[in-house]
Amino acid sequence: MTLTEILPTLRSSLPAHLEPAVWPRTAGWGAGGELRVGGAGLAALAEKHGTPLFVVDESDVRERCRAYVAAFGADAVDYTAKALLSIDIARWVADEGLGLYAGSAGEVRVAALAGLDMRRVVLYGSAKSPEDLETAYAAGVGTIVVESLGEITRLAATAPTGQRVLLRVLAGPEPAGGQDRRFGVRVAGGEAAAAVARIAAQPGLRLAGFDCSLGHQLSRFSLYEREIGRLCEFAAAMRRAHGVEPEQLNLGGGHAVAYRPAELGLALDAFAARMRGVLHLEADRHGMAAPRLTVSPGRAVVARAGVTVYRVLAVTRTQGGDRLVAVDGGMSDCPATALCGSRHSAVLLGRDAHAAAGPAAVVGRHNDADDVVVPDADLPGDVRPGDLLAVAGTGAYHHARATNFHLVARPALLAAADGGARVLIRRETLDDMLVRDAGR
Amino acid sequence: MTLTEILPTLRSSLPAHLEPAVWPRTAGWGAGGELRVGGAGLAALAEKHGTPLFVVDESDVRERCRAYVAAFGADAVDYTAKALLSIDIARWVADEGLGLYAGSAGEVRVAALAGLDMRRVVLYGSAKSPEDLETAYAAGVGTIVVESLGEITRLAATAPTGQRVLLRVLAGPEPAGGQDRRFGVRVAGGEAAAAVARIAAQPGLRLAGFDCSLGHQLSRFSLYEREIGRLCEFAAAMRRAHGVEPEQLNLGGGHAVAYRPAELGLALDAFAARMRGVLHLEADRHGMAAPRLTVSPGRAVVARAGVTVYRVLAVTRTQGGDRLVAVDGGMSDCPATALCGSRHSAVLLGRDAHAAAGPAAVVGRHNDADDVVVPDADLPGDVRPGDLLAVAGTGAYHHARATNFHLVARPALLAAADGGARVLIRRETLDDMLVRDAGR
Repeated sequence: MTLTEILPTLRSSLPAHLEPAVWPRTAGWGAGGELRVGGAGLAALAEKHGTPLFVVDESDVRERCRAYVAAFGADAVDYTAKALLSIDIARWVADEGLGLYAGSAGEVRVAALAGLDMRRVVLYGSAKSPEDLETAYAAGVGTIVVESLGEITRLAATAPTGQRVLLRVLAGPEPAGGQDRRFGVRVAGGEAAAAVARIAAQPGLRLAGFDCSLGHQLSRFSLYEREIGRLCEFAAAMRRAHGVEPEQLNLGGGHAVAYRPAELGLALDAFAARMRGVLHLEADRHGMAAPRLTVSPGRAVVARAGVTVYRVLAVTRTQGGDRLVAVDGGMSDCPATALCGSRHSAVLLGRDAHAAAGPAAVVGRHNDADDVVVPDADLPGDVRPGDLLAVAGTGAYHHARATNFHLVARPALLAAADGGARVLIRRETLDDMLVRDAGR
Repeated sequence: MTLTEILPTLRSSLPAHLEPAVWPRTAGWGAGGELRVGGAGLAALAEKHGTPLFVVDESDVRERCRAYVAAFGADAVDYTAKALLSIDIARWVADEGLGLYAGSAGEVRVAALAGLDMRRVVLYGSAKSPEDLETAYAAGVGTIVVESLGEITRLAATAPTGQRVLLRVLAGPEPAGGQDRRFGVRVAGGEAAAAVARIAAQPGLRLAGFDCSLGHQLSRFSLYEREIGRLCEFAAAMRRAHGVEPEQLNLGGGHAVAYRPAELGLALDAFAARMRGVLHLEADRHGMAAPRLTVSPGRAVVARAGVTVYRVLAVTRTQGGDRLVAVDGGMSDCPATALCGSRHSAVLLGRDAHAAAGPAAVVGRHNDADDVVVPDADLPGDVRPGDLLAVAGTGAYHHARATNFHLVARPALLAAADGGARVLIRRETLDDMLVRDAGR
């Protein structure tokens, strides 16, 4: 039995437990219910910068990058920028030794503005526009991922001579149940082999290896192990047929992140060791040298580092007694609940709680049944308009996918570190939102 | 039997049928596969303004507004701005006699910038921020919708004397199955009655009537009929208890829109006549004068008027033979597929098709299994990179919820009318996307 179980009234005077797997590594309680990240108080930041507010724990992102490099080695980890990107964040991940997977001209240009070594930047994407490719060529992007047979001729005709390419290979079976909507070249039916032959026939392109993407929130090693086996078998066949041998095998990302206390993230060191072991075994079996094993995580690098601070605007109860707590954001800054089924944790901050905690649904301001931030939060019974809530695990896809729905301004994104915070992306203004409106 | 069934080869040389219920009212084919809206050629507009491109048929929006006014009467229709808003669009709906339901300070300020009669503007929202209220007061918004018991005291303390309010009442049963996450005051349990009493006790507030919101994509009259019955019963009780009699009853929106040929929109004239009839019957039954019946549609006014033009970037086939057509937008400009389950129609434009049509999934550029624009399009067999596609029914919630996911610029929004097109919202640039980035 815990002390709060023996003395239930004690519970209301204790701040909520911050599960380390879910909250930023530097998160902790200060006096008066202040919640600190990177030593900076979130209530104080909310007061100064307004709400909703995204705060990212810089040391958490950097620590996660270092853990990836420690597990997989230098030059073996690329950050997939779509999860969360600003010019400074690109600098952080590059500082820590990661390359960058960029999925558009915009992401390539941010990498260039951040001063990254462009040889460590990879342009990928099932649907690259002419602008994406021209921007990548001009910036000197190191690697381009080929994701369909049709784009090889176009790349050969337009890319700088000697352009390094990876081939996105779909080696496994079609997804069970749902429809297969994946781009990449399929081993079954000979499409991947045809792609290798086509690239090998282009003197201007240099096939450096293979790339795959297995899904989202994956925690089972076996999925990746089987893919390594298939890719090695395919690589061996390509060596026999075309004399090409991969120097790199990118396993993609999709690594699970813990959003809720009971959930587990991917155990990184064990995962890396196991994948290396399987790769060497499989390569040996086919009499090949093992290619360099790389990964390209996005969400797993930044999800836990990010917190969103909201202000409560209204509280009500349904007929069945369920408590609804409406905050000043929602769908406009938190698309993940609806789209990915991820579930976040929320705590009250900025004052001591005087009532025992109980269930509450945290909903947004957009007057929509889908506008749910945390469907099953556990919050003090006295939560009221004006209170602040912090929601964990919002580092990935929240800033990246924020909208102006209802003409609500997108939040600022702050980096908290060393007891202070600085603005990475400033808060949007109405003028920002109307600058493109020709009716002014 | 149709001619194309007798002579299947004929089919490939005919442009796709444009179902009138689904495409803008002025949509039609021109020479060389050009698709015209408002007399302007969409392929020519795509060439000039880039893709993805939102085009809205001004006459379709205006016609829909007129149909609503014809059905419900002058001063009886408000446009719910969150579906699609620009300063000029606010002017169009006001020109046609509609008021505006604004859900934020930003939407109120757009109404003011557009020069609207602010007495016809309504501020609603389950979670109004202090900024929303202050902006509404300063702009002289005619009506504020009260959506929880808790906000009455705040309104009474801050609103201009004599502020007209509507009360959002939840008169019906809790939603079956799913959780009830609706704001509004509930008749069951006496919350709505307490709200009326509280408003009546505030001399600074004037309770003008009741408001409700029944859901999305509703086509059955019976839902609305039952709600009128319940609201009249509640109104009669409130007259007995507090001597207040509603002058207005707003039935909300949620009116069904046809996204696909087989679907039916709400039959507007029949709906209005039936609702008026039921209202008079119910009011008579309770010995009351019938309040003014109003509606506040959003999606139903603009959904069909909007078209998105995409450029095809890649085409591939799955192992099972399914065709995937990837375009230069997707999740960043088309959130509706994932969020609302709406399904759109797509056609090739800008050239004659030379191959028979067949099934294809139109997917976006965001490398995500959820990034689907039209899961089951019917497109010519020779669709290839560089082709243009038009997708119907994207007027509502597409521009309004567009994102910079992957740092992809948000599309321009054009108004097509009288053989030409003009920019309502210009295309976003990388500079626009980076203006808030402090790392530059």
